[in-house]
Amino acid sequence: MNTFGQALRVTTFGESHGVGIGGVIDGLPAGIPMDMDFIYKEMQRRAGGQNLYSTQRKEADRVEILSGVFEGKTTGTPLGFFIQNSANKSKDYDSIKNLFRPGHADFTYFQKYGVRDYRGGGRSSARESAVRVAAGAIAKLLLSHFNIKIQSGILSIGKILGKDIDFKNAQKSEIFALDKNVESQQKEAINNARNAHNSIGGVALVRASGIPAGLGEPLYYKLDSAIGALMLGLNGVKAVEIGEGTESTHLLGSENNDQMDKKGFQSNHCGGILGGISTGNEILIKVHFKPTPSIFLPQYTQDINGNVLECNIKGRHDPCIAVRGSVVCEAQLALILADMLLLNATSKLEYLQKIYASKK
Amino acid sequence: MNTFGQALRVTTFGESHGVGIGGVIDGLPAGIPMDMDFIYKEMQRRAGGQNLYSTQRKEADRVEILSGVFEGKTTGTPLGFFIQNSANKSKDYDSIKNLFRPGHADFTYFQKYGVRDYRGGGRSSARESAVRVAAGAIAKLLLSHFNIKIQSGILSIGKILGKDIDFKNAQKSEIFALDKNVESQQKEAINNARNAHNSIGGVALVRASGIPAGLGEPLYYKLDSAIGALMLGLNGVKAVEIGEGTESTHLLGSENNDQMDKKGFQSNHCGGILGGISTGNEILIKVHFKPTPSIFLPQYTQDINGNVLECNIKGRHDPCIAVRGSVVCEAQLALILADMLLLNATSKLEYLQKIYASKK
Amino acid sequence: MNTFGQALRVTTFGESHGVGIGGVIDGLPAGIPMDMDFIYKEMQRRAGGQNLYSTQRKEADRVEILSGVFEGKTTGTPLGFFIQNSANKSKDYDSIKNLFRPGHADFTYFQKYGVRDYRGGGRSSARESAVRVAAGAIAKLLLSHFNIKIQSGILSIGKILGKDIDFKNAQKSEIFALDKNVESQQKEAINNARNAHNSIGGVALVRASGIPAGLGEPLYYKLDSAIGALMLGLNGVKAVEIGEGTESTHLLGSENNDQMDKKGFQSNHCGGILGGISTGNEILIKVHFKPTPSIFLPQYTQDINGNVLECNIKGRHDPCIAVRGSVVCEAQLALILADMLLLNATSKLEYLQKIYASKK
Amino acid sequence: MNTFGQALRVTTFGESHGVGIGGVIDGLPAGIPMDMDFIYKEMQRRAGGQNLYSTQRKEADRVEILSGVFEGKTTGTPLGFFIQNSANKSKDYDSIKNLFRPGHADFTYFQKYGVRDYRGGGRSSARESAVRVAAGAIAKLLLSHFNIKIQSGILSIGKILGKDIDFKNAQKSEIFALDKNVESQQKEAINNARNAHNSIGGVALVRASGIPAGLGEPLYYKLDSAIGALMLGLNGVKAVEIGEGTESTHLLGSENNDQMDKKGFQSNHCGGILGGISTGNEILIKVHFKPTPSIFLPQYTQDINGNVLECNIKGRHDPCIAVRGSVVCEAQLALILADMLLLNATSKLEYLQKIYASKK
Repeated sequence: MNTFGQALRVTTFGESHGVGIGGVIDGLPAGIPMDMDFIYKEMQRRAGGQNLYSTQRKEADRVEILSGVFEGKTTGTPLGFFIQNSANKSKDYDSIKNLFRPGHADFTYFQKYGVRDYRGGGRSSARESAVRVAAGAIAKLLLSHFNIKIQSGILSIGKILGKDIDFKNAQKSEIFALDKNVESQQKEAINNARNAHNSIGGVALVRASGIPAGLGEPLYYKLDSAIGALMLGLNGVKAVEIGEGTESTHLLGSENNDQMDKKGFQSNHCGGILGGISTGNEILIKVHFKPTPSIFLPQYTQDINGNVLECNIKGRHDPCIAVRGSVVCEAQLALILADMLLLNATSKLEYLQKIYASKK
Repeated sequence: MNTFGQALRVTTFGESHGVGIGGVIDGLPAGIPMDMDFIYKEMQRRAGGQNLYSTQRKEADRVEILSGVFEGKTTGTPLGFFIQNSANKSKDYDSIKNLFRPGHADFTYFQKYGVRDYRGGGRSSARESAVRVAAGAIAKLLLSHFNIKIQSGILSIGKILGKDIDFKNAQKSEIFALDKNVESQQKEAINNARNAHNSIGGVALVRASGIPAGLGEPLYYKLDSAIGALMLGLNGVKAVEIGEGTESTHLLGSENNDQMDKKGFQSNHCGGILGGISTGNEILIKVHFKPTPSIFLPQYTQDINGNVLECNIKGRHDPCIAVRGSVVCEAQLALILADMLLLNATSKLEYLQKIYASKK
Repeated sequence: MNTFGQALRVTTFGESHGVGIGGVIDGLPAGIPMDMDFIYKEMQRRAGGQNLYSTQRKEADRVEILSGVFEGKTTGTPLGFFIQNSANKSKDYDSIKNLFRPGHADFTYFQKYGVRDYRGGGRSSARESAVRVAAGAIAKLLLSHFNIKIQSGILSIGKILGKDIDFKNAQKSEIFALDKNVESQQKEAINNARNAHNSIGGVALVRASGIPAGLGEPLYYKLDSAIGALMLGLNGVKAVEIGEGTESTHLLGSENNDQMDKKGFQSNHCGGILGGISTGNEILIKVHFKPTPSIFLPQYTQDINGNVLECNIKGRHDPCIAVRGSVVCEAQLALILADMLLLNATSKLEYLQKIYASKK
Repeated sequence: MNTFGQALRVTTFGESHGVGIGGVIDGLPAGIPMDMDFIYKEMQRRAGGQNLYSTQRKEADRVEILSGVFEGKTTGTPLGFFIQNSANKSKDYDSIKNLFRPGHADFTYFQKYGVRDYRGGGRSSARESAVRVAAGAIAKLLLSHFNIKIQSGILSIGKILGKDIDFKNAQKSEIFALDKNVESQQKEAINNARNAHNSIGGVALVRASGIPAGLGEPLYYKLDSAIGALMLGLNGVKAVEIGEGTESTHLLGSENNDQMDKKGFQSNHCGGILGGISTGNEILIKVHFKPTPSIFLPQYTQDINGNVLECNIKGRHDPCIAVRGSVVCEAQLALILADMLLLNATSKLEYLQKIYASKK
């Protein structure tokens, strides 16, 4: 199941230490200008190797468009793209070839398929998230024609929680911190974890604005359902919240309901989604990332023959996957909203009449 | 998008105050004995009207099988089923015909479709969850041949959190409380909310055991992804956690990783899922329900013409949707696991060889 | 796999001698007036029991709408419908309970599922085509807003081929004959087959007009691909032709190509489809039906234990399934065109801009 | 819609004169040895430039595997592959940049998308069929483990029909002729067409043997339905027949039914499919190809501004697309059968029990 989306369908392939990773985006309307600089910048936001808070693996992450674009615009045919793997250090993995690294997918892939590409986790590697960001960047190019804007940042690292949310701060922060008041503490927490050969968890916040009301396809492809599917399917994510989220369970109905006045909703506890459909208010999502499973402390595990061994991981890893993960979550929300925008185009007879009347 | 599942596909229809609700289950293997008593009991676990902690709307909730079963067993053809609506009180809704009830899908359905069946929320009503429970019961009948068992209960009501988890207590509790030590406090919280014409939130815990390792279809139909999709798509759910969930963000990698010894995993922080695939350990999920949006206090809202009005909701409503919601979450996990069990049947060439060798 | 369509998805259920048959139509835009009289008339066109040229099984074939329609219009939610089976004579099938009727699906269903509902073929019965006609009638109600018109009739019975095509004649003919010059010969051929306790094959012609250019979703959901899927999936169909069809293989490129002048295409050898997309010209399809497999002559076959037996079929059967089959093909083309009309709504950025500009 | 298949899903991308074409095969079981020589040979069977009966465009058609294979075997992850375009002569197309070539998809793509890659037809080019052959070769590698064998050849060219069918002759014939008695006449017909700057149609026959009974997923993904979808979706195909095909309409039921004796079916008029499911007998399909639309005679057409012009096509084209098309049809049948083999793995509870019992 390497395809997601309904009207805008993204199919991906590739492993961490193979020749590269890539995908096919199907269902893009014809006529979207393809801004390669923008795609490059989005890729760079996710790329590692830029500071001490992320992996030292540095990939060029150049997105090569293989099809679907002609004279600078989409043609309506599938957009194939490819990203070469250039910074493979497969030798790092020789020692763990037959081991199941704790917290990784090694054990479960082996159980499921009877075989696995052990180099960097193969298909299960977070390397694949580069594909999500590339596709998300293209989705953003579509959304830009409808004034839909998506942003993200880091809310918390470990127990250090940001309160004064500022997406502009996230843009210039090395750890995408939303609250500059706690940014240095959050950095320190990451540094401490890394220096202790350990890792730490964190929470990303994603926000979309400019959304028309009406996006979401009940009952089983609701906006929150699609968000749940993509966010919880991302490596290391163990919880997702919409709007008030877990906190809403502590509230009474009178506190949690969003009442309306002349201007619309007076509050946005629901996070911009009611009944699985966008209200037109901001969409707000919190995504919880576990600490990176790759740590440099000795751990006990089994090998493929069931022997218990001490496992010592090498390689280059993020001390906190939430940081770069926030950019991936942002890309995923872009993909979901683009898909929903397309799907909603047939929700009313009236819409179809606008289109086909105009054909004559 | 009224279909979910990939190998086991459930398509549903029906509104709260129409003639009834129903569905079609496609992809069921032939040869499963259909235990109608079991289905009935599962439906009764979800049904309201049984005590003060749920809605007073009492539906017979008899599941009528329309197809796909012959001489007591599934035939491999689609299983159609129907549940009549018998306890409609559509008049309760005349006064809110043109209003957008706060916290409900009224506003968004109207925005999306330009029209809505206002009676009890129409398609957006939690009445539809009866269909999920019926389909889930049938999924459980399939899972029973593989010793897979799924249970659920209430972890918290408002801020009253259960700690001493006992699924047996949930079975006999009127509010499906998992911790008998806090059950009376949790009941009191619900009573207080109801007596104040208000409502309250809560958290359900769902557990599956007996799962073979290997279930889940990376990268985009991972086990946790499917859980995210169905759970967050359920009415009133605002957050989902897998295993350690939000708490995992407070841990270091060394604390969160599940190490292995001779017997297997020493801990289960991951909640039975690594890389989107089952480990074979218990699957543990927390589902967070907001307080019921239908409360009997006056609230301000708009009507379909944009006028601001005071809204006074009538009707029969659960003071805490988490209670009955827990049963629905359990059914949903059954559906997901049944789907994954079928999908996994083609993960290895070796499996196919077992099947087709045996054909001769 | 009991669902077809991509944007307009139809899921069906039901067996020949169960309580009834039905379906769920998902993806219908909101706002389509539901004309129940029209649906009834369409059902009657397919219904048997009206003359000597069809089965004597006479079903009321009343389509009951279970959901998705409110105050006479579609609401955008799934339209569930049900058609009761009223004229079951299951006893007719006791004698063939363990036999594989020649030309039927008895053998293959038993091989696949290990069990089968032998009464009237169960799920494999042509009874299911009533569901296709009901769904097709609803698709026609959508298409009527875009001046798309679909017609059908009988081109040939056995070797008696109509040449002077007149769809108006088909409307009033008991055998839907397109050519009144050969109608009586065609009737005679059917009568002869029936009187000889035998059956006969035939060819239906289906035509759609008023189609906008641009319908069809390359590369794998082309218009002709969808036609191939639905038509060849219909009981008894063994060949499908588009436009010039098999005859085009006898032509040179210069004879088969459709050249253009000021007014558009000068000819329509392609049958209204180029590259899998509608040209705007008439769509023309020929569907070839084998003779009804149920004949009243003795035939040799196996039973489920592998014993060879003489099989003597009873019951009520069409002497020529092509006749009523033509109406089903027409309904199927309506469903395909409705689906393609919806899918095409997102083919250009320009279309989306028309829709979402108008939202403000 | 650039994905086909249900359990084995193939997604493709690429245009005739872009950097290349490729695809992603998802759902391949783990453990299949990847025989690159075999894939290469299959590609060469389809490749042009080898004799006078096909296009002079000669592509290397090297299939590069990008993912999904590790140490020579499939891993269960998506198999991405790419085929470079090396023999582009885009200049050939400058003169037809704004013209709609008769018989081509130029007009319809322009209508649908408002833009098109005119170089060699872009996405609509038969170049894409190389991807189908590559994927089909991989499907054959799976099928080889189950003794399923697929062959193809040319039945007729223009009106010259082969009768003495010999698939071995097809293997060594330059035009894949099935009947050596008419092979030279068929070659002559192609030569005559080419020398007259014209083209000619033809019919391919495809045969599969060694099929287990039970493949096919009623009601809407029947074996014949899937065949209809893929075959009629192939460039230039205007008709498809199963088994007796169009001829069956000329038969009486008693002539067309396949009776059984001790050994099984006495005849195979049905072409190996009953009720959409394989009988275990040979599957026989006829695929009718129109004459190549690209001819070198002057033709009238419109340009994108509606002006009528004389169109003079240049470039390198097959005088008869049926010849190489037969290899593509064979590949497509392989893909369909592989998909059906996987889907059938969950048709019975008994099959699942075999798999999961063996897991312990």
